[in-house]
Amino acid sequence: MSGSDFETLTRRLREATEWVSSGLGALSMLRESPSRLPELARYPLAAGGKRVRPFLVRTACLASGGDPARALGAAVAVEMVHTYSLVHDDLPMLDDDGLRRGLPTLHTLHGVPCSVLAGDLLLVEAFAELLLSPLPPQTLAAMAGRLARAAGPSRLAGGQYMDMNPPPSVDRLWVERMILGKTAAMIRVSLELGCMAAGRTPPGIDRVSSAGDRLGLLFQLTDDILDVRGTASELGKSPSKDSAQGKANLVTFAGLEAAEAEAASLSEEVADLFEALEGDWRDAVTLARFLPRRRS
Amino acid sequence: MSGSDFETLTRRLREATEWVSSGLGALSMLRESPSRLPELARYPLAAGGKRVRPFLVRTACLASGGDPARALGAAVAVEMVHTYSLVHDDLPMLDDDGLRRGLPTLHTLHGVPCSVLAGDLLLVEAFAELLLSPLPPQTLAAMAGRLARAAGPSRLAGGQYMDMNPPPSVDRLWVERMILGKTAAMIRVSLELGCMAAGRTPPGIDRVSSAGDRLGLLFQLTDDILDVRGTASELGKSPSKDSAQGKANLVTFAGLEAAEAEAASLSEEVADLFEALEGDWRDAVTLARFLPRRRS
Repeated sequence: MSGSDFETLTRRLREATEWVSSGLGALSMLRESPSRLPELARYPLAAGGKRVRPFLVRTACLASGGDPARALGAAVAVEMVHTYSLVHDDLPMLDDDGLRRGLPTLHTLHGVPCSVLAGDLLLVEAFAELLLSPLPPQTLAAMAGRLARAAGPSRLAGGQYMDMNPPPSVDRLWVERMILGKTAAMIRVSLELGCMAAGRTPPGIDRVSSAGDRLGLLFQLTDDILDVRGTASELGKSPSKDSAQGKANLVTFAGLEAAEAEAASLSEEVADLFEALEGDWRDAVTLARFLPRRRS
Repeated sequence: MSGSDFETLTRRLREATEWVSSGLGALSMLRESPSRLPELARYPLAAGGKRVRPFLVRTACLASGGDPARALGAAVAVEMVHTYSLVHDDLPMLDDDGLRRGLPTLHTLHGVPCSVLAGDLLLVEAFAELLLSPLPPQTLAAMAGRLARAAGPSRLAGGQYMDMNPPPSVDRLWVERMILGKTAAMIRVSLELGCMAAGRTPPGIDRVSSAGDRLGLLFQLTDDILDVRGTASELGKSPSKDSAQGKANLVTFAGLEAAEAEAASLSEEVADLFEALEGDWRDAVTLARFLPRRRS
């Protein structure tokens, strides 16, 4: 990966961040509601994060020859579903995290009841925002169905359940299955929704879906590596939570050195998968190559 | 209301219960998932309840000349959204309820983390089930958008937030606004989705929506009356929670006698609203007349 590739990726990530911010700043819930609840739900959304999922929606839409304006609702939706899962995950009786994206978590500021409800609202409004997109109704219905499946029992919610209820002895296959749900589901559906917003239909995006699953695994692997190596100030969250809680992840399994070698080889595999896809997927290729070097 | 009206209503409620049970027994999440999470989410759904919302979906569909088979996904969806809100509401740091529909609540059996997640799953799967309905895509997209708005910040979630965060001094108007969200939103959208499944489009269902809001208010008023008068064995839940928690409701405001008089007059108003609608709304009329006499 050259320095100019890295500069291009940085610029593209910034473009995607600005793009999705315009959508997140104009959420319909902020106009309609008589209560403070939407403001509470907006706090963890506005706290930032890397906006990787909106970036992937945009990248997939552009690579499929679509107009990103039509994919903005999908980008907002995936960021909202991702953020709902963080808000609920961080609750005291779940992961009990006090710091997220460098800021106090919602429940430390506003208590558990409001945080449960704000997470619920983010999930509901993800569907509301997606369904307001300027797209044909059959595309909207298909995209909403796919988002629901991605958030459902075989994917996001299922992975979170596995993470909270590990069997007495976990193996590598179990950890990968958990990651396919907990992390890869939203990475994959981001790519799928970007393609669909550009008019591509499901049979034609199966290879994109497969590449999305592998990218999700790579993303989690490099996250787990950072979790062991990083400090709170670099990460914006408490480091080494997994090891402190005795949770199995891809690094605790293989050790740091083997995990880093795996990340390097998986990075090449994922880059090849995207390079082989129809269309210009250069930004996804560069992201895959960059991930093993990420510092946050 | 005659004895035969009451018998017809009882039969119709039983028919609706059997009808929606067939849908709830065949949820796609029960087939797909590798984890126990869908079974946990199914427990509060299977616990029963009166299935008033599915009954209203069915009634509205039939009154609009539609085939109930096409509205089954909507009936399943409204019952799932309603149940998600109960599961999260009953959590220890929220309403802290140990008994619901005559059975121990989910968190008393499986803990808080699983209950947060099972509630999330019910909400996601409501959209998934609705979107699997055998209806034209433009109808599905419109119905899913309406369900999201009903569950959102101006309606269900907003009403729950108001309930959890009352101002220092509440007035009658505040309580009515809370009920419009917390209870009426799902009553109203049940009627709307039933009409839409039968092919009726939004401008034509505005009067149904208004009747739904008034029916929701009547439903909550008679629920609050029961809450004061009832016993746990009749209600299947802990009685007088509101007064024990010092929460304002329509009875604590006006006193029991005035509330009963209001229920009788509101019951007639709602019956008239449904009688004036196009189509055969007899079952909704009978329900409105029956509500002041309900014992559970």
